Amino acid sequence: MANKLLALSLFLLFSGCFASTFRQQPQQNECQFQRLNALEPDNSVKSEAGTIETWNPNNDQLRCAGVALSRCTIQRNGLRRPFYTNAPQEIYIQQGRGIFGLIFPGCRETYEEPQEQEQGQGPRPQDRHQKVEHFREGDIIAVPTGVPFWMYNNEQTPVIAITLIDTTNLDNQLDQIPRRFYLSGNQEQEFLQYQQKEGGQGQQQEGGNEGGNVLSGFNDEFLEEAFSVDREIVRNIKGKNDDREGSIVEVKEGLKVISPPTLRPRQGREEEEEEEEEEEERRGDRRRHRPHHHEEEEEEEEWSHQVRRVRRPHHHREDRNGLEETLCTLKLRHNIGQSTSPDAYNPQAGRLKTLTSLDFPILRWLGLAAEHGSIYKNAMFVPYYNVNANSILYVLNGSAWFQVVDCSGNAVFNGELNEGQVLTIPQNYAVAIKSLDDNFSYVAFKTNDIPQIAALAGLTSSIRALPLDVVAHAFNLDRDQARQLKNNNPYKFLVPPPQSQLRAVA
Amino acid sequence: MANKLLALSLFLLFSGCFASTFRQQPQQNECQFQRLNALEPDNSVKSEAGTIETWNPNNDQLRCAGVALSRCTIQRNGLRRPFYTNAPQEIYIQQGRGIFGLIFPGCRETYEEPQEQEQGQGPRPQDRHQKVEHFREGDIIAVPTGVPFWMYNNEQTPVIAITLIDTTNLDNQLDQIPRRFYLSGNQEQEFLQYQQKEGGQGQQQEGGNEGGNVLSGFNDEFLEEAFSVDREIVRNIKGKNDDREGSIVEVKEGLKVISPPTLRPRQGREEEEEEEEEEEERRGDRRRHRPHHHEEEEEEEEWSHQVRRVRRPHHHREDRNGLEETLCTLKLRHNIGQSTSPDAYNPQAGRLKTLTSLDFPILRWLGLAAEHGSIYKNAMFVPYYNVNANSILYVLNGSAWFQVVDCSGNAVFNGELNEGQVLTIPQNYAVAIKSLDDNFSYVAFKTNDIPQIAALAGLTSSIRALPLDVVAHAFNLDRDQARQLKNNNPYKFLVPPPQSQLRAVA
Amino acid sequence: MANKLLALSLFLLFSGCFASTFRQQPQQNECQFQRLNALEPDNSVKSEAGTIETWNPNNDQLRCAGVALSRCTIQRNGLRRPFYTNAPQEIYIQQGRGIFGLIFPGCRETYEEPQEQEQGQGPRPQDRHQKVEHFREGDIIAVPTGVPFWMYNNEQTPVIAITLIDTTNLDNQLDQIPRRFYLSGNQEQEFLQYQQKEGGQGQQQEGGNEGGNVLSGFNDEFLEEAFSVDREIVRNIKGKNDDREGSIVEVKEGLKVISPPTLRPRQGREEEEEEEEEEEERRGDRRRHRPHHHEEEEEEEEWSHQVRRVRRPHHHREDRNGLEETLCTLKLRHNIGQSTSPDAYNPQAGRLKTLTSLDFPILRWLGLAAEHGSIYKNAMFVPYYNVNANSILYVLNGSAWFQVVDCSGNAVFNGELNEGQVLTIPQNYAVAIKSLDDNFSYVAFKTNDIPQIAALAGLTSSIRALPLDVVAHAFNLDRDQARQLKNNNPYKFLVPPPQSQLRAVA
Repeated sequence: MANKLLALSLFLLFSGCFASTFRQQPQQNECQFQRLNALEPDNSVKSEAGTIETWNPNNDQLRCAGVALSRCTIQRNGLRRPFYTNAPQEIYIQQGRGIFGLIFPGCRETYEEPQEQEQGQGPRPQDRHQKVEHFREGDIIAVPTGVPFWMYNNEQTPVIAITLIDTTNLDNQLDQIPRRFYLSGNQEQEFLQYQQKEGGQGQQQEGGNEGGNVLSGFNDEFLEEAFSVDREIVRNIKGKNDDREGSIVEVKEGLKVISPPTLRPRQGREEEEEEEEEEEERRGDRRRHRPHHHEEEEEEEEWSHQVRRVRRPHHHREDRNGLEETLCTLKLRHNIGQSTSPDAYNPQAGRLKTLTSLDFPILRWLGLAAEHGSIYKNAMFVPYYNVNANSILYVLNGSAWFQVVDCSGNAVFNGELNEGQVLTIPQNYAVAIKSLDDNFSYVAFKTNDIPQIAALAGLTSSIRALPLDVVAHAFNLDRDQARQLKNNNPYKFLVPPPQSQLRAVA
Repeated sequence: MANKLLALSLFLLFSGCFASTFRQQPQQNECQFQRLNALEPDNSVKSEAGTIETWNPNNDQLRCAGVALSRCTIQRNGLRRPFYTNAPQEIYIQQGRGIFGLIFPGCRETYEEPQEQEQGQGPRPQDRHQKVEHFREGDIIAVPTGVPFWMYNNEQTPVIAITLIDTTNLDNQLDQIPRRFYLSGNQEQEFLQYQQKEGGQGQQQEGGNEGGNVLSGFNDEFLEEAFSVDREIVRNIKGKNDDREGSIVEVKEGLKVISPPTLRPRQGREEEEEEEEEEEERRGDRRRHRPHHHEEEEEEEEWSHQVRRVRRPHHHREDRNGLEETLCTLKLRHNIGQSTSPDAYNPQAGRLKTLTSLDFPILRWLGLAAEHGSIYKNAMFVPYYNVNANSILYVLNGSAWFQVVDCSGNAVFNGELNEGQVLTIPQNYAVAIKSLDDNFSYVAFKTNDIPQIAALAGLTSSIRALPLDVVAHAFNLDRDQARQLKNNNPYKFLVPPPQSQLRAVA
Repeated sequence: MANKLLALSLFLLFSGCFASTFRQQPQQNECQFQRLNALEPDNSVKSEAGTIETWNPNNDQLRCAGVALSRCTIQRNGLRRPFYTNAPQEIYIQQGRGIFGLIFPGCRETYEEPQEQEQGQGPRPQDRHQKVEHFREGDIIAVPTGVPFWMYNNEQTPVIAITLIDTTNLDNQLDQIPRRFYLSGNQEQEFLQYQQKEGGQGQQQEGGNEGGNVLSGFNDEFLEEAFSVDREIVRNIKGKNDDREGSIVEVKEGLKVISPPTLRPRQGREEEEEEEEEEEERRGDRRRHRPHHHEEEEEEEEWSHQVRRVRRPHHHREDRNGLEETLCTLKLRHNIGQSTSPDAYNPQAGRLKTLTSLDFPILRWLGLAAEHGSIYKNAMFVPYYNVNANSILYVLNGSAWFQVVDCSGNAVFNGELNEGQVLTIPQNYAVAIKSLDDNFSYVAFKTNDIPQIAALAGLTSSIRALPLDVVAHAFNLDRDQARQLKNNNPYKFLVPPPQSQLRAVA
């Protein structure tokens, strides 16, 4: 027990600290902005069954933060073709439900079609593939560098997904240009245009510029041999027979994929969320005692009457290779939306939910985290700063007034931010938010897997943590004023609108 | 026990190796200097109760090393206003004594005024704040990125503090410009000028260029609401009512801050040092057996008759959150000055004291270390190189002759270095030092938390570790000469002056 | 036991992920190539007993990958003078046998001449030095940053060694220029020329440009005192008396160095290999049970009748400082050549052997790995990509046809690669190889200590891991074609030539 604590505490102590370090710094002077602007996508690529909009990654703010952003809208029965990216990604599901898959190289195909299940020694099953998962509004999906990802909208509501690509993450060993490698199709990858525009010399002058996927550059003979298929299939692999527009294709009859049933039919929505929370509680407890057992057991047991895992009998669990377990069965999505129980909540002010690698271990690999916030009309997020991360904030709903201040005391942003707009809050810059709408909400992507914020006002503020006399003399106040400055605001991060605010005077 | 060893050895093995890696490389070709120069501060900002001098961070040497340097002098009763910085810092106290505080976001206010102590359920104490610590000559204070820091001189002697900011540390996710974010006042941050000079386009043309703190860019209404204070206090928050010059203000009546008493009244200085050493010994022992107990217990007990810790009864110690313990109670200062027992000592040559993350764990977070050296007149530090770090050396006293040699065998520095001057010894460059004064001493900041040096001469030199025949043929010597080259110098790093030197010939 | 598993699994989980991150990214847009080229050395420096050829490190490909390459040929009795480098290195022995040494600062001289062995308390032994090791064809030797390295050819066959310097590794805190620091001689370091050519302003205009070693820039007086030797020896230290050309000198009478005997006299070559394999097996087992015991025990026992280790009695093993053990006795070489048992083998297609930090722990420190491949004529390495590393591939024998495809589907390389040529396969770019010779073989240096590849075709391909319906709709195929695409190729990475290929159709 003591050993566990030692190992764990050493681990937490140092990994917490180290967590902030897995990113490249921006080029010299790239973060010296006079002004930040509310950013909107400047390009839109239409697909058969959806649209991908992109923010210009060469924008000052995004270059300083070292990230690229896109928004993908998928219509009913739309399938986003599989692709991988040269940097880690966080995807936030703004709207809709569906299924997705990540393909981890070297992991087994653990899902197989059920009809062969009872045949014993019969012919091999019709199809096997890696894990398929459901997603829904409010989910964060974590996608590591170089891991193929696909998603599909199996409901009526269009899916809207916001993707952050952390191009300066050191997992990306290429330069900072975001690159999507599609496994199929003949569409241009959505960030290529910025490369052409900015580079002066375009990329595709020579060689066909008809677009293509990562296999379309190989010779027909190579592909024929590699796949052991005929020339016609090779043409399809290269995207030649495909006149469907873009990277989101329509599956008219609906995609037939085995995937575990959602829990919805069995229970109402609120209950589902609660159950998820409780389940996590339980897992947390159990993990402490049996840390080498993976938390997915519960889910697996739930599905086991429908889907059989290949070659993973329960009684051999102890013999497994630890590495495979951890990488192949990592949890890939976590909900932080409105429906989850928030980390901070004030019924008059709003709610906050933060997702770090402590809750969602894959984020340690990515070096990223996320925060979901809802702030009610006229309520305020007190001035604070991000201690160890840049924060890239996307407005999901409504609008709010933002102020961002640099180290010289200048407001580099002082204005409204509306639904669909993005603002970078650079590391250590001070920011305050006042909601202008009752339904204002945002998601903030943070470039550290255990991001920390430091409040400058309120119950947990840095100023409150200073000795009274230091406050008095540093701020040129008398002791009574200093006491007010330290203690008057009784709220932590979210302050209710003035009329409902209980003023506590020390 | 075996488990502990395993965990620890794995940890040491790999973290030792990894330790060197948490810094950005300099821009391309930035370390190709023909000549190094002894550097002095090129700017001085006067304050009401002190001065801050800065070295130009755009100097070749400092850009190659990826650091910025400043020297702060604080007069009696001078308070350096709280500020945080976008990169980790090491502060060496060249002279004086005083108190300081670091404000860790999320940690508790554990110091409270004592008079309320006996009242039980009475009104809440007059003031609570985070830990306040004493510092004295020879201390290294470690300040992580984004953590507010303040200091105060409560004695007669001016405090002189040398600060290294490790701007290329990956904890800094902004660009490499050093930025100080003051919580109060209206002074310009001390490194802003270099930004203006070099950038071509100044930063403060638009918006008031009256200087300011990180709160002065917010609207009055925001601040009123966030702090729940009146408009007059808001003006002070923004620094408007403050005509005191600079970031070091005078506290005429003396700062009233509860802080543990120094040990000095009880005992003489030498004893204090020794006690500190012994105490550390004891801690070391105990740590091995009860690693999740924090080493601050002893100090706490000593003070417990005067200062009560908030909500931390001894009998609940086991229940504490490990993370809070480690981050909120990390040791923040460590003495490496003349008064400490050195790691290497020769009464005819001098003394060396190195501080790494093995002794001072917070340095692991910072990725920095430090070395204090005193070399007596005509004694020599044998040629050596820094294996895994840059070394930024500041002369505290006296002067010495330095030679620095690059990979082409050119002396890029060959000259005197005097009190107050700085020289960068780039990674892997060879350096030798000959003292010109009996009181020559220096502090070297190292950009690795477990820095290693490799001697090129003496008892532990790389040449001595080569097989005799390799030395003979590599250096074109006969075997007897090679034996002399390997064995003649019986000293490790510091060689006494020739007249007193015992020549050992093999 | 559970604790060990916990510690280890936490460690593996996260360190595996982190492993990819210890390198700098290339400068902006540096990886946007239209075309890759097969690279050959563009410079050759002649030495008395050998030659050092260098690839231009300013080439696009090598800059994007952030590495430098050289090839060293050592004639019989040639000694490569000791030098250290500002970045980690992997050396592959393409041909020959010999001995080498690495000098770890702070480690003990554990090899001593045997004749003193029985004298008990007598005079100290004639010579002591750090470990000397044998190398042979197929070895990877790992050399950390700043650690001096020398090697010697004690056989008839010329030694040919390919060295990769990982200049963008964060262990290098200087800029990205490869720098060799020689401890002796007066040769110019082999990468200096590129600095002069590219920099515009040469480095050696002032100061003597006669070349030199890291000691030749010091004053004579400094060196006399530091080594306690006379002026004549000092002249040799500075390389003045040395008219032997270059950094590889001839030892006419042969180098006399105590080193453990090779195992060859006792047994045949095949047996040696097998024994090595078995020995590793055994070690692996033991390590699991007694992980703090070092694996070198066996070898030590074998040699113990000839070479006595200094101050390391077996019964004190438990008391040793863990750090010293790990760093001073790390295994430094590992064979991946033709003679080792491969990780993947198909008698009709070829063989693959990968060396990662899981097998060879020092690679964790270096952040590098390596792969050896042999592909028989007309066999194919299926299209795949490197998930988390750049791959720098050097052809050892024969020739093969390579195709490399970028994210836009363009073939940036489509041609032959011949013996002695180098090609960079950038991270995430797709590549396929078809051998043109029966003896085609290569070594690939990978910039991650646990590199992963993802096949795009074959038994373990990403496409096979996708659900059938996703494949069908993404590739615009009917279900039967999709099934063929997923399942037709029954091979993992290496596909035999078509005539011998067993076509499995689902």
